[in-house]
Amino acid sequence: MTLSTRTRRRLGADARRRQLIELGLRLLSREPREQVAIDRIAEEAGVSRGLLFHYFPTKRAFHVAVVTAAADRLVELTEPDPALPAPERLRRGLEAYVGYVIENRELYVSLVRGAAGADEELQRVFDRTRGRIVDRIVASLGVAAATPLLRTAVRGWLALVEETTLDALRGGDVPHTDLVGLQEQALAALLEAAGVAPPG
Amino acid sequence: MTLSTRTRRRLGADARRRQLIELGLRLLSREPREQVAIDRIAEEAGVSRGLLFHYFPTKRAFHVAVVTAAADRLVELTEPDPALPAPERLRRGLEAYVGYVIENRELYVSLVRGAAGADEELQRVFDRTRGRIVDRIVASLGVAAATPLLRTAVRGWLALVEETTLDALRGGDVPHTDLVGLQEQALAALLEAAGVAPPG
Repeated sequence: MTLSTRTRRRLGADARRRQLIELGLRLLSREPREQVAIDRIAEEAGVSRGLLFHYFPTKRAFHVAVVTAAADRLVELTEPDPALPAPERLRRGLEAYVGYVIENRELYVSLVRGAAGADEELQRVFDRTRGRIVDRIVASLGVAAATPLLRTAVRGWLALVEETTLDALRGGDVPHTDLVGLQEQALAALLEAAGVAPPG
Repeated sequence: MTLSTRTRRRLGADARRRQLIELGLRLLSREPREQVAIDRIAEEAGVSRGLLFHYFPTKRAFHVAVVTAAADRLVELTEPDPALPAPERLRRGLEAYVGYVIENRELYVSLVRGAAGADEELQRVFDRTRGRIVDRIVASLGVAAATPLLRTAVRGWLALVEETTLDALRGGDVPHTDLVGLQEQALAALLEAAGVAPPG
């Protein structure tokens, strides 16, 4: 086997993995994973059950891979556009966040619940995701060194964003602009309490 | 020993249950439940393993009963004193909350994590506890009817209080007065965003 053949085969495997994860993102975003049988995933992907298990040894492993991809997408989608003024950047980020949660509710619930549940891998995915968002917000504030109070404030704010977004979706009667306004004002107050000027 | 034996005999079923739960509150407040063997609980209670299982058919049932008792205590301890002016009432309530969490960390983690975990009973305990605290806060605001936005805001604030308290304990380098200040300012901002004047 030449090097290029090996590379091609490996790329093939990666591409197949990505294809299966993409399918998982579609199937698992609105239906709870308990309702999505592994046979259906294999069938829709046009692969055998055996091949699916070749890439993901258990249904849980597949679920963790899909939730990880969903978390990465959430981080990307809420990436602030540096061309925008700071308050606008925050609002756009929150709108993207809320929109993503609406479209991908079940995966989002898996991510957030994973943080507290028994699944250590999902807990790591959640911690890493929240850590990336905390870092990004802290970096945007332009402070020389983030105090423990500031990091705690930003982590608390993210918990608030998660809870209010899920709660508003559950009830369905909070307009999104009100929800985002609530989240914006909370951040401004928390930053002030942590002794930091809001970004901008 | 003689006295305790007599006392033990005289204990009715309810009193025995309460005694076992009290013991659980003491044993499980700082040690994770995985580290507390059922044999140790029975031994410290001076009862047989069989009798313990008579009251609580599984270790999980015992744990749920203890977490429920811990949640009830948390709600009681943070009950506002109507004699105090409103801002002072809130601060005292938060200080009691943070103090309770420090003293009963493991049970608190069980309660908060239960909300998101696979244990439906713990989830119900958490939902009921949070619901009681939300109702109490909303009632204290003296609004005729709580809007969905207001309830979402208060639920989000509680998520923030839980997260910041656990986070500050984890890191250990956020002074409690700063933590409580952060929580107070966040509530004021959220109430304002929900169109309600702060209590008082």
